[in-house]
Amino acid sequence: MQSELARALLRPKSVALIGASDDVGKTTGRPLRYLRAAGYKGAIYPINPRRPEVQGERAWPSLGALPETPDHAFILTGTEAAIEALEDCATHGVKVATMLASGFSEAGVAGAKRERRVRDIVEKTGIRLVGPSSLGVVNLHEGLTLTANAAFAESDLPRGSIFVASHSGSMIGALLSRGKARGVGFAGLVSLGNEVDLSLGDLCAATLEDDRIGSYMLFLESTRHAERLREFALDAHRAGRPVLAYKLGRSTEAAELATSHTGALAGDDDIADAFLRECGIARVETLDGFIESMPLLRRAPMLSPAAKPRIGVVTTTGGGAAMVVDQLGVCGLSVSAPSSKLADAIGAFVPIERARVIDLTLAGTRADVMKGALAAMLQSGEYDLVVAVVGSSARNHPELAVAPIVEMAEDGKPLAAFIVPDAPAALEMLACHDVPGFRTPESCADAIRAAFARETPRAREIQIRTTESFAIDEQEAYALCDRLGIPRAPTVVLAPDARLPSIPFAYPVAAKVLSRDIAHKSDIGGVLLNIADAQALLAAAEQIRSRVAAARLAPNVAHVLVQPMEKGVGEALIGYRIDPQVGPVVIVAAGGTTTEIYKDRALRLAPVTLDAARAMIAEVKGFETMRGFRGHENGDLEALAQAVVQFSMISVVEPRVMEAELNPVIVRRQGAGVVAVDALMRLAPPG
Amino acid sequence: MQSELARALLRPKSVALIGASDDVGKTTGRPLRYLRAAGYKGAIYPINPRRPEVQGERAWPSLGALPETPDHAFILTGTEAAIEALEDCATHGVKVATMLASGFSEAGVAGAKRERRVRDIVEKTGIRLVGPSSLGVVNLHEGLTLTANAAFAESDLPRGSIFVASHSGSMIGALLSRGKARGVGFAGLVSLGNEVDLSLGDLCAATLEDDRIGSYMLFLESTRHAERLREFALDAHRAGRPVLAYKLGRSTEAAELATSHTGALAGDDDIADAFLRECGIARVETLDGFIESMPLLRRAPMLSPAAKPRIGVVTTTGGGAAMVVDQLGVCGLSVSAPSSKLADAIGAFVPIERARVIDLTLAGTRADVMKGALAAMLQSGEYDLVVAVVGSSARNHPELAVAPIVEMAEDGKPLAAFIVPDAPAALEMLACHDVPGFRTPESCADAIRAAFARETPRAREIQIRTTESFAIDEQEAYALCDRLGIPRAPTVVLAPDARLPSIPFAYPVAAKVLSRDIAHKSDIGGVLLNIADAQALLAAAEQIRSRVAAARLAPNVAHVLVQPMEKGVGEALIGYRIDPQVGPVVIVAAGGTTTEIYKDRALRLAPVTLDAARAMIAEVKGFETMRGFRGHENGDLEALAQAVVQFSMISVVEPRVMEAELNPVIVRRQGAGVVAVDALMRLAPPG
Repeated sequence: MQSELARALLRPKSVALIGASDDVGKTTGRPLRYLRAAGYKGAIYPINPRRPEVQGERAWPSLGALPETPDHAFILTGTEAAIEALEDCATHGVKVATMLASGFSEAGVAGAKRERRVRDIVEKTGIRLVGPSSLGVVNLHEGLTLTANAAFAESDLPRGSIFVASHSGSMIGALLSRGKARGVGFAGLVSLGNEVDLSLGDLCAATLEDDRIGSYMLFLESTRHAERLREFALDAHRAGRPVLAYKLGRSTEAAELATSHTGALAGDDDIADAFLRECGIARVETLDGFIESMPLLRRAPMLSPAAKPRIGVVTTTGGGAAMVVDQLGVCGLSVSAPSSKLADAIGAFVPIERARVIDLTLAGTRADVMKGALAAMLQSGEYDLVVAVVGSSARNHPELAVAPIVEMAEDGKPLAAFIVPDAPAALEMLACHDVPGFRTPESCADAIRAAFARETPRAREIQIRTTESFAIDEQEAYALCDRLGIPRAPTVVLAPDARLPSIPFAYPVAAKVLSRDIAHKSDIGGVLLNIADAQALLAAAEQIRSRVAAARLAPNVAHVLVQPMEKGVGEALIGYRIDPQVGPVVIVAAGGTTTEIYKDRALRLAPVTLDAARAMIAEVKGFETMRGFRGHENGDLEALAQAVVQFSMISVVEPRVMEAELNPVIVRRQGAGVVAVDALMRLAPPG
Repeated sequence: MQSELARALLRPKSVALIGASDDVGKTTGRPLRYLRAAGYKGAIYPINPRRPEVQGERAWPSLGALPETPDHAFILTGTEAAIEALEDCATHGVKVATMLASGFSEAGVAGAKRERRVRDIVEKTGIRLVGPSSLGVVNLHEGLTLTANAAFAESDLPRGSIFVASHSGSMIGALLSRGKARGVGFAGLVSLGNEVDLSLGDLCAATLEDDRIGSYMLFLESTRHAERLREFALDAHRAGRPVLAYKLGRSTEAAELATSHTGALAGDDDIADAFLRECGIARVETLDGFIESMPLLRRAPMLSPAAKPRIGVVTTTGGGAAMVVDQLGVCGLSVSAPSSKLADAIGAFVPIERARVIDLTLAGTRADVMKGALAAMLQSGEYDLVVAVVGSSARNHPELAVAPIVEMAEDGKPLAAFIVPDAPAALEMLACHDVPGFRTPESCADAIRAAFARETPRAREIQIRTTESFAIDEQEAYALCDRLGIPRAPTVVLAPDARLPSIPFAYPVAAKVLSRDIAHKSDIGGVLLNIADAQALLAAAEQIRSRVAAARLAPNVAHVLVQPMEKGVGEALIGYRIDPQVGPVVIVAAGGTTTEIYKDRALRLAPVTLDAARAMIAEVKGFETMRGFRGHENGDLEALAQAVVQFSMISVVEPRVMEAELNPVIVRRQGAGVVAVDALMRLAPPG
């Protein structure tokens, strides 16, 4: 089935161009012209009811008039006609259609209605669809330039092993021309459009059987259809094909939907980040990094989540190396100095200073020196990646320092080059041998960061519910904590008629209203702290009841929760929710206003391992005060990591949890554990 | 004098090459070869005592043997011989020498000693020096390739109007070749080396009389000799010549020198940032931004410090515009939507949706449409800069959307282009007309951010003292606050023998040890808060005295300072210090650990205007809680801005202040002012 779809999609024996124009200057005239220019060998059927000929070729009045059923139809007509054409395709047994027209879900209520009609046709008939709003599908190895993107007007399209899938139709053209200029070749490119039927993951999965494809570039506007993307990413990983992504939306404000604070920190972009990382997809942040990173992905190892990459730098130019080291620092990566053993080994044949960067300038730029230094660095086992920085010689004498890099990069060695001058021949030499060659310190550092942020992808089911949810009360939430083994403050519930409460823990205590209907207890004065004795507690409970009654939020506000005042050296927030695109995520932050102001949280797909939880905690700057900052006492961050792991598995004890937050979790001094002192959870309705 | 130096430096009638090698492959053989290849018209005197001929030209045994005194000597010999050669040059009346040798201040104690000898020669004889460790001086309009940088081996060096000054010698070659590849031409380039005599500012200032120079690119490793750089920047601004800088060191940890916390926040890099901004120098953060920004600097207006740039975007491609908008957001800039009037005006001739970006895709890519949209945008007065994003048509049909940009960019209109595909002809068209053309969304956003961060440069004297300093006590510091008009808590000083203190303000109060010798009062228990009455105050004073005595820090610890407990809606830190490179700086931050953890401070050169202080406060994220964040009460940030202005002028009331900090300043609710409740200051010794 996959194979049949893949063939019709990317290796069709025949294609129909529905609405092909006679005017080669028009968008709808392009596909015929491009297919002919690219030498597509299958049958091409232009369909145009108004002319017997199109661009000098025979045209057919309708699908029904064709001598055979085409494998793949490119529907080029306007919006309404396109829906009819799709129906016609389905009726005639066309396997795959690609639809150019726009005017669907992006175009208001009428558009959404049209999109529903398209979806209905797909579901009822089984025809597969790319788009609508797709600029087309291209397989350069087959001459299949089934696209209206003007970039494919050129002859000499750069053929290679990369498959591009893009939410933006215009970007397939931009990536094609930028790749061509840099010796990057493509196996195929697809513009996804609205993904009404075939999603990015589906389309890429359909290419897995094609041996001419070695890797993938994804230009993303969102992570919709995440489950299919993950399945594809897993298969690509198994097939040894790296996947690289550039995603828009880093600076947009995500909609505030959740009732707990968790949802309000940062936009959804860090969710996409966590998702891509866990899928083993390298996400770059620069356009040059997108074009230049692929050879690095083949070479950079996937490290364990808590590991910091060990990066070595060797250079023939001080200034050039400084730019890379500086930019790596901006990306949060530091360069590892050679051990004295390694420095001695290199120092034996070339004068170097003892420093973080191995600077070969004193020796002059010589092939034997560069080769010797690289060999010693690669053999030392001290680095996950070696970056060679080459100065002016690269421009006119690539044989001096660039050729040795190519030589030492054999067998996929973890080696990359940053070329400081403009040096087309050097970059071509590197590209020809699939050795990572970077043009700017920014793309170099970006690619390295992205490559090492990847994790080995794992299968996990994405549970997504878009149903309504309801809050449970704090005591009910604590019951779930107990089942997870997360330490929480002991509690006593005061019934409305309680007279002299017997409290099984010492004063002072805190008292809070206990109600499913009141999420933000403090806002209505429903929390009182530091209550000194039983008398004060009774008064406090009374006060809370009257405040809550005044707020008129809850029908039943009679119960008050009592717990001891807990002390620690710091606080944390642990959150969990079901993201509508990628499923369960777990969040850890320092809590309080600074968390929101500085967008200082770590987020991963849930559940997480202990190593991942440790890495998350290490990311949160707000925890510095619990890491020995300026004489502050260390907090029990190991116990916090344990709690994060447990909380991330909350669906195991209660699959209906939609959203949950422990805030604050009191972190005690090292070795003394953590304790949650407030909990807020929302569940999906039963059944 | 300036003219004579400038002539000898950059337009010498004769040059000596001291230590010129016969071997054209050697570094010391390069300058002769390059000068001949570049067609330098002055006299060239190779000096080599061991050969009568060098590279087929007559060589002289010594300076003394020459038929004339050369204007400029390039000393190519080893370190020791170079010092002797410099002395020899001075003796023979050579005006300027450039020294290639390294091994000076960067090479330990022996190197520093050698550097002192060089400095002595310069000071005693008046000879001017570029270097040591300089790769040379180049004036492309004169064929003066007086350099050992291998990049100058090429013929067809890209001549133009940019002058490059670089702390890194290798970068002059890299910038030359990168510029050449992009149609950027240079008037001259200089490698500064150690700046023992002529600093970057001196060298650039020497070029101001040359009309062939239109702008400057500075590759900086530090802001040393800042006063000269500022003088030059002012003159360049007066001459209408933009200055662009790329500076290393964004990620290095600056040394912790100061005693107050102020010095410990972030490295020195934000000081450099503030300095360059105030000099009107645009500082980019990407290498491509460095190469591509110059045409934008000529067009982007310099805004007032508190103004946010109004950036409009028009596009022929949705995906391409999204990349720029996204990256501008990452840089902290947002795109301004057109007014409905402007949208109507454009909508009258082309179908557009009402959105932030003016998207012309529905019209197809047409010259009249792009031209009309640009005309309407530029004429509207709604934008400080219009960015046109051009998609696939730019590659093979620049006449459609790129030519209209060039046409509308006449007379220095604030217009820039981001070209989405690889499109050499389009970029060349833009470069030829000096219209900003960017290749990546990152360089585009970087350049825009840098251009609008510039301020109109002002003259100000940089007072730098490297002398020792001593602390004054809190009461003495408050006296300075009083003279500045900064509100501070009222105080009473309790003498050691005070029995029943009479306090002219209400309890509760705070009591603190008062001593010049104790900077960190809390660390030794020298601060007690919330003291309820006179009795408790006496006890508190006693307790402080005994704690301070136990700490054995101060010879005289008898005095205790008493002040009321002040309440507000937030806190701030205001700092001031004399930076050893750029002079007085003023800092504002939220204070507390988060300030250090998140490097969340705003810094400017002192003094600042009220507008600048407002802009500083707007930069500090920690003040969000006082800007109506989540229902918090607004703080009196206007009063805080006033206090920042006053504190930044502290040298007016006491020129000896080396370092000063008000921490915390209590910020009351809007309209209720601010009050400093602690002050720490250090002065230079009298005299």
